[in-house]
Amino acid sequence: MGMAGVFKLWEELLTGVAIMGAGRIAQVHARGVRLAGQRLEGIFDLRKDAAERLAAEFGTRSFESAEEALSSALVEVVCIATSTDTHADYIVAAAKAGKAIFCEKPIDLSVSRAVDCQRRIQTTGCFLQLGFNRRFDPTFSKVANAVRTGKIGRIENLTITSRDPAPASIEYYKVSGGIFKDMTIHDFDMARYILPEEPKEVFAIGSVLVSKEIGAIGDVDSTTVLLRTPSGIQCQIINSRHCVYGFDQRIEAFGSEGAIIAENPRLDEVRLYTKEATAAGSRLPDFFLERYTDSYNREWKDLFGRLAGGRPPAVTFDDGLKALQIAEAANESLESGTIVQI
Amino acid sequence: MGMAGVFKLWEELLTGVAIMGAGRIAQVHARGVRLAGQRLEGIFDLRKDAAERLAAEFGTRSFESAEEALSSALVEVVCIATSTDTHADYIVAAAKAGKAIFCEKPIDLSVSRAVDCQRRIQTTGCFLQLGFNRRFDPTFSKVANAVRTGKIGRIENLTITSRDPAPASIEYYKVSGGIFKDMTIHDFDMARYILPEEPKEVFAIGSVLVSKEIGAIGDVDSTTVLLRTPSGIQCQIINSRHCVYGFDQRIEAFGSEGAIIAENPRLDEVRLYTKEATAAGSRLPDFFLERYTDSYNREWKDLFGRLAGGRPPAVTFDDGLKALQIAEAANESLESGTIVQI
Amino acid sequence: MGMAGVFKLWEELLTGVAIMGAGRIAQVHARGVRLAGQRLEGIFDLRKDAAERLAAEFGTRSFESAEEALSSALVEVVCIATSTDTHADYIVAAAKAGKAIFCEKPIDLSVSRAVDCQRRIQTTGCFLQLGFNRRFDPTFSKVANAVRTGKIGRIENLTITSRDPAPASIEYYKVSGGIFKDMTIHDFDMARYILPEEPKEVFAIGSVLVSKEIGAIGDVDSTTVLLRTPSGIQCQIINSRHCVYGFDQRIEAFGSEGAIIAENPRLDEVRLYTKEATAAGSRLPDFFLERYTDSYNREWKDLFGRLAGGRPPAVTFDDGLKALQIAEAANESLESGTIVQI
Amino acid sequence: MGMAGVFKLWEELLTGVAIMGAGRIAQVHARGVRLAGQRLEGIFDLRKDAAERLAAEFGTRSFESAEEALSSALVEVVCIATSTDTHADYIVAAAKAGKAIFCEKPIDLSVSRAVDCQRRIQTTGCFLQLGFNRRFDPTFSKVANAVRTGKIGRIENLTITSRDPAPASIEYYKVSGGIFKDMTIHDFDMARYILPEEPKEVFAIGSVLVSKEIGAIGDVDSTTVLLRTPSGIQCQIINSRHCVYGFDQRIEAFGSEGAIIAENPRLDEVRLYTKEATAAGSRLPDFFLERYTDSYNREWKDLFGRLAGGRPPAVTFDDGLKALQIAEAANESLESGTIVQI
Repeated sequence: MGMAGVFKLWEELLTGVAIMGAGRIAQVHARGVRLAGQRLEGIFDLRKDAAERLAAEFGTRSFESAEEALSSALVEVVCIATSTDTHADYIVAAAKAGKAIFCEKPIDLSVSRAVDCQRRIQTTGCFLQLGFNRRFDPTFSKVANAVRTGKIGRIENLTITSRDPAPASIEYYKVSGGIFKDMTIHDFDMARYILPEEPKEVFAIGSVLVSKEIGAIGDVDSTTVLLRTPSGIQCQIINSRHCVYGFDQRIEAFGSEGAIIAENPRLDEVRLYTKEATAAGSRLPDFFLERYTDSYNREWKDLFGRLAGGRPPAVTFDDGLKALQIAEAANESLESGTIVQI
Repeated sequence: MGMAGVFKLWEELLTGVAIMGAGRIAQVHARGVRLAGQRLEGIFDLRKDAAERLAAEFGTRSFESAEEALSSALVEVVCIATSTDTHADYIVAAAKAGKAIFCEKPIDLSVSRAVDCQRRIQTTGCFLQLGFNRRFDPTFSKVANAVRTGKIGRIENLTITSRDPAPASIEYYKVSGGIFKDMTIHDFDMARYILPEEPKEVFAIGSVLVSKEIGAIGDVDSTTVLLRTPSGIQCQIINSRHCVYGFDQRIEAFGSEGAIIAENPRLDEVRLYTKEATAAGSRLPDFFLERYTDSYNREWKDLFGRLAGGRPPAVTFDDGLKALQIAEAANESLESGTIVQI
Repeated sequence: MGMAGVFKLWEELLTGVAIMGAGRIAQVHARGVRLAGQRLEGIFDLRKDAAERLAAEFGTRSFESAEEALSSALVEVVCIATSTDTHADYIVAAAKAGKAIFCEKPIDLSVSRAVDCQRRIQTTGCFLQLGFNRRFDPTFSKVANAVRTGKIGRIENLTITSRDPAPASIEYYKVSGGIFKDMTIHDFDMARYILPEEPKEVFAIGSVLVSKEIGAIGDVDSTTVLLRTPSGIQCQIINSRHCVYGFDQRIEAFGSEGAIIAENPRLDEVRLYTKEATAAGSRLPDFFLERYTDSYNREWKDLFGRLAGGRPPAVTFDDGLKALQIAEAANESLESGTIVQI
Repeated sequence: MGMAGVFKLWEELLTGVAIMGAGRIAQVHARGVRLAGQRLEGIFDLRKDAAERLAAEFGTRSFESAEEALSSALVEVVCIATSTDTHADYIVAAAKAGKAIFCEKPIDLSVSRAVDCQRRIQTTGCFLQLGFNRRFDPTFSKVANAVRTGKIGRIENLTITSRDPAPASIEYYKVSGGIFKDMTIHDFDMARYILPEEPKEVFAIGSVLVSKEIGAIGDVDSTTVLLRTPSGIQCQIINSRHCVYGFDQRIEAFGSEGAIIAENPRLDEVRLYTKEATAAGSRLPDFFLERYTDSYNREWKDLFGRLAGGRPPAVTFDDGLKALQIAEAANESLESGTIVQI
């Protein structure tokens, strides 16, 4: 048996994944599947050439149609990495086809459509994991774990700072659903992940300080959101659409017995000392793919482990829904200037 | 001429200061005056023994009455370090006596009484400096200066974290005017000091997480306050009445071209590396006097320089009034759950 | 054409590598070759089962004999990752077979045998790169580059700290050639890599502080070596065979215009603040494979780039020889207590 | 009784100190005495105007002659802060006059003269403390204490880095006794202070990299010294006469259970984040007086405590002598290129 034969046998033992979408984030997931040692069965995208390009890059094939992907017996997991407005439909189709599902965040830009989607897949009992990758970031999961195990006593305050290196295109923002559903939603999930109880109140302020274009489409680019839980734990989320020193991603949990802070990683550990400054360090990563590479790869490794072990998903449909509800409440607060009950 | 004679001549050239009050903060100011090389003319306190003790410690005398202090030709500066409810009356008396005035913060717990006080001293043209000592902290003034000179471009966000090491006595809190007027007022002043425009909106949340006693007197011990300026700059102030690792005092200013962060000083620069952890540092200072020693001393040095040079005070009555107004607005927001215009 | 066919075509375009040796470091190189996207043609080891295991792990084959590997037309690069005493012979054989060579450090434990080997391959004109992987570490190469481009002015002093997390087995040390040829040799190469001129003087002291077993075989476990260049630049190399907080690997270059310091990476960027300590960070990596993963992978990527571009190796035979000569001089100094000319 | 009377009474209870010398370091000690709350009885200097200036600054008198100072009943402590060549004679005179003595380092530039001095004061039983002020630096004494109490297990290695911000005048260097007796002597004492046993071997290398003038007077400006104790503990001392980023003063102790590192303090805790760098900190102190202010003041406070409590000096004549002996051995090693037994 030649090498090709060996490969064939080996591949048959692996979990097959179809990726819906062939954009940047689809590529990230293709790599995650590959590094987890599983089988990329194929790529589907309405833009056929994009699907083929990505397929070629990973030595796999492109599907002619979504149906082909969903009906293939070799596909066990469907990864939904398409535009947000198509998520709900793909979820329903994949669930009905009996596939395990990994879906990028958010489920949908509308809470009611998300709820509708949930209702429609209710009886399928499908395995569905949401793509809140930051839960798999080693520093953030360490913070969450420290809080859970009482390393800082009872948590009293949580500060999440999240700043993009630079604004995306205005076209992207137009369909993004606004900063809270596009960007802060990661932080809402992080707050829920770390806090011992659900936030019940939200207050938000926002400004246009980075780009007038963003203001012109009715969005804001600089926000602060406060969350409060029933027992009074407070959480601040500070966001900006730009940051000259890189992708600023920090979490600080304060409690009765101490604090735990996830600092930014820097590109390397070199420090420069000159007449002007001491211990000047390197830039922060410039891009979420660079900063969160580990988290994406761990996410897939974790998912395959759950599938193999028959364990439930790490991030559920409900998690996606709740983050979305907080985002809607934040929008409402931003407009009303009052605290909003979730 | 013996040594006593030399001392006499030398002392006559110095600025004479009377300190009203003989408590902890009065002692701090006595030291500040002494280190600035000026003359401590005497101490007054209703508790005569306390005044005598402090006078003895600094080799000066105690006054029999406030009138004696205020009418002494040797007193050029009156330092008001008594309980808050007496500030306004002493200000008026000292102003009418033609003295320069240094008054501890806050002017009063009531905006209307403070306004009344301002009206009464209006025509005296007195030099009056408020005791917002943190403006003289080398790290904080460096941050303010960096913001002013554009080192971080246009400022967009300001985060002030301020946590006391441990709660004071409940007796103290009962007359403190509540956390916003007692503790956050320093941070309100710091925000005004650093921001290029006045905050016009305030929103506040608060919880009782540290001490049920504090809740029982109607106060809170853990708060987050948001400020917003007309152009949309946002500021978060995070406060707690306890902090096991010491007196946590940080400021972080973020702008279009970077960020500047005043980290906590630690008791020393020693770092320990063991099986468990790396670079474990020393505790933060445990007390405001330890943390802000420099600022108190610089405050007095600066004040004497202003008096000598005929320059206006660094921190004005109006600064005290505005911080107080923000504190009142924060209280209003805490009750109403809505954003409050200042 | 099915997937197997695509793979076949694709693989033919790649550079084929045979790995001699199937131990821990051979595995590292197999991964490096794979991640560089090139073709692992096969593995050879005298212990046939070890070769087969490693081959299976990477989906490649094992060779029956060294000759089979060296005579295969599909093998373009021979990676020598066997025990040190066999390096020289494999180098000669591979060079005569017209292969490009990657050889782990050191070339040999004896300078004279290494010189002899160099003489024997002289006329082959083979591409031979030595495995001083740390030159490819991002932090260390950044330091070297900063020194070269004058970021710290003229370099005057270099401090290299290198401490193993824990001693290896005494069996390993028996055949290691002693600490200078086994461990410090990396640091000698690093010094040569960073310094603008060759060290010409060496002085060494050593002690047995970690393990009496090490002393019993005539070796030392804690050493300090000084190097000096003709123009007077000084370099200290501090080594220990154990370090409870992990793999301590730092470089500090001091010059006329500043200093550049490569600090240790920590396992993550989480800092803990408690009653006892502030900013306590995570452990350092515990193992050279963990610490230097990047460097091994970059080493292979760089090597394939050089082969493709017809450029000379990054680390030459001569580099290996010179590091070895410094190690011998260090041994001589350790015995004599005098400075030794290299 | 007026204020002058109070002062008189109060002053009589204090310990009177005469300072010999009116230069920069004399001024430091005058401040130390004053801050310790004791009495500066007067200043003597051969340059009468300098003595008068310093006396005026501290509101004390100048002595007409050394004899006047030494014979005054009001003088209990003599602080010798004159040029090094006069130390020994003043020590003998003060000891014979029955005074307690504080003497700046070094005792003398010659070991034999120092030994002779020791012999001459032997029978006086005088209290004599040497001015190795760095033992009183809070970070360094914390390191020493951690080593002593086993916080890092058994110490195996000690690295002392000490770099002056900029060279002093060549006139100063001409009479300084060379870098080992002038600068490294502080580090020799620090090594002795921290290490659990006396260094018995010394090896030194030196270069002229900073200033050709220094080379022209036969001195070096960049040195590395190795010390070794009988049980094999190693210590490196790295010195330079210049450092653009400030006064670089670090100590790193490594042991069987960890390491403790005294990092440099920076002028403040402000960190700047820009496009170019992250966490860029402030300069180090630029001057020994700025860096070691605390240590000088603690030194005096400690000394007065010892005198009052009848306890022996913290730093003895013998400590001064031993540091000097190591310096001489280092000079010998520098010349011979061999390790020298102390």
